[in-house]
Amino acid sequence: MSLGEFDIIARYFARRTDRSDVLLGIGDDAAVLDTQSHRKLVVAMDTIVEGVHFPVDTDAADIGYRALAVNLSDLAAMGAEPAWMTMSLSLPRATEQWLGGFASGLFELAQQYDVALVGGDTVRGPLVITVQIAGWVEPDGWLTRSGAKPGDLLFVSGIPGEAAAGLAVVQRRMVGGESASFLKHRFLRPRPRIELGRQLRGVATAAMDVSDGLLTDLKKICAASGCGALLNVEAIPESAAMLELFEPDDCLQYALAGGDDYELLFTLPPARATALLASLQLQQRVTQIGVITADSAVQCLHEGKPFRIKRSGYDHFAGGADGPS
Amino acid sequence: MSLGEFDIIARYFARRTDRSDVLLGIGDDAAVLDTQSHRKLVVAMDTIVEGVHFPVDTDAADIGYRALAVNLSDLAAMGAEPAWMTMSLSLPRATEQWLGGFASGLFELAQQYDVALVGGDTVRGPLVITVQIAGWVEPDGWLTRSGAKPGDLLFVSGIPGEAAAGLAVVQRRMVGGESASFLKHRFLRPRPRIELGRQLRGVATAAMDVSDGLLTDLKKICAASGCGALLNVEAIPESAAMLELFEPDDCLQYALAGGDDYELLFTLPPARATALLASLQLQQRVTQIGVITADSAVQCLHEGKPFRIKRSGYDHFAGGADGPS
Repeated sequence: MSLGEFDIIARYFARRTDRSDVLLGIGDDAAVLDTQSHRKLVVAMDTIVEGVHFPVDTDAADIGYRALAVNLSDLAAMGAEPAWMTMSLSLPRATEQWLGGFASGLFELAQQYDVALVGGDTVRGPLVITVQIAGWVEPDGWLTRSGAKPGDLLFVSGIPGEAAAGLAVVQRRMVGGESASFLKHRFLRPRPRIELGRQLRGVATAAMDVSDGLLTDLKKICAASGCGALLNVEAIPESAAMLELFEPDDCLQYALAGGDDYELLFTLPPARATALLASLQLQQRVTQIGVITADSAVQCLHEGKPFRIKRSGYDHFAGGADGPS
Repeated sequence: MSLGEFDIIARYFARRTDRSDVLLGIGDDAAVLDTQSHRKLVVAMDTIVEGVHFPVDTDAADIGYRALAVNLSDLAAMGAEPAWMTMSLSLPRATEQWLGGFASGLFELAQQYDVALVGGDTVRGPLVITVQIAGWVEPDGWLTRSGAKPGDLLFVSGIPGEAAAGLAVVQRRMVGGESASFLKHRFLRPRPRIELGRQLRGVATAAMDVSDGLLTDLKKICAASGCGALLNVEAIPESAAMLELFEPDDCLQYALAGGDDYELLFTLPPARATALLASLQLQQRVTQIGVITADSAVQCLHEGKPFRIKRSGYDHFAGGADGPS
């Protein structure tokens, strides 16, 4: 297949609309809509497919949690506050045990963020779950991918790569120890950075959530902002759990190209970055990993020298990178 | 499988919420949400799966049209005006021909109703399409399934059964003549009754769209309204095209139990029904087919005598009835 997901959307689905109530349409983490009220409505939709986005035989509660988490992560990247979801559940067999588990994982997370399930569809079919999430941002207060400027500093929350390492733990059925459990949990139960996103409103010049891999997603910010970036690989925070179970080279590969972290990647203006960061009530680590440049190239540097990675990230259609299966 | 779709939703997903902005939650054709603006937001989500909701090898343009049409039909049943959609497209292979066809069918209908595609997801997986549609109703002006009262007259738009007959034409590869083409078109290109739904606001006591079969969906109105119904099968409008190709018994079976019509089933107060109907600018036939009763039974009568049908409608999980494949 020659068409990537980005091409498909750009070529077939990103049509101009005459509707003036579409403030931000296709192409960012979420759309922003005018409801003729003070706040603006933010909507995102994400689908997870068995064998593509999570391994066959994943626990039903983890699937339910994940279906919502990946959507909450999109709202986090917009700086939005979640409110409602609709859910489509296509499943081959309806057993009480599976449904009970799935619902428990879904509502565990929904309750944490006061998200109401208001509707949806339940059909017989392959195991595919789609959630559409809606939330609110203050007027003009939303974050986009497109505001990064040359000289802005590039930050990431958390420790990128731990989710991909966790997937490897699951796939290779690695056993033993806290590190394996910890990484598995990081893959199965990504923590949407809603609170961080909210605090970045009016602070960050650009933001998105890392779902397809750090480097792939950084390229999306750069493409949307019309700029490039230098990424210092040695600045990426190291994970003790990853280093215990994997070779340093593989750890770096997971950090740069592994998807599923659902951390926030964002840019801050250099003159104010330190003061802005100090003003945030951070619940997780935030690390400067690079800088935005004026050209359009996205380059990795290791101790100042060009660094080449094996594969850059995950695209469902372009092939080349392998996802969960 | 013992659990039906209705049971699954009621048991696992229809949870109470503390959110006061959820004016109408799970259980109707769509949810109604308070956005702190004059009008109320109406959202619905429907999924179509290859081999379940449409036959394998259905033309991509028809699939694109259908994915939106079934959702617009839900808004029609609420009396709402469509505005935006988000779409999830899971597909096994991304070919330009398929995508071009799919997009043409989708946007053909979207443009007719001024619906903007504002976001979504494109993933690799089995062919499953989910659309979430959002629209607007005036305050307190929406239609529900739950307002039917004993004595209300029961109406249906269009000619029920033609879509199911059209599916049979497709499945049996029946050829020849205008009737076959006409019925096939009725299945492949259902016409959402947006305009009728809008006119029924403040007029009809209950309404829903017929997707799972006339009798099955009538039972849903009765269950939601706490009443029963008598359905006069001889009052159901006959289709010349159906009668040309199928036995009268099969025609009646399609009319009562065939899904996919996406016509509106609605109730009117008896004293004002004639005047109300006369006030509508109807673009399609509307026929009185029964009456709402005080008990909880839904009965079919044929010339005054009880009439039993072979199978009552389609439920993805309960089995018993066969859908497209």
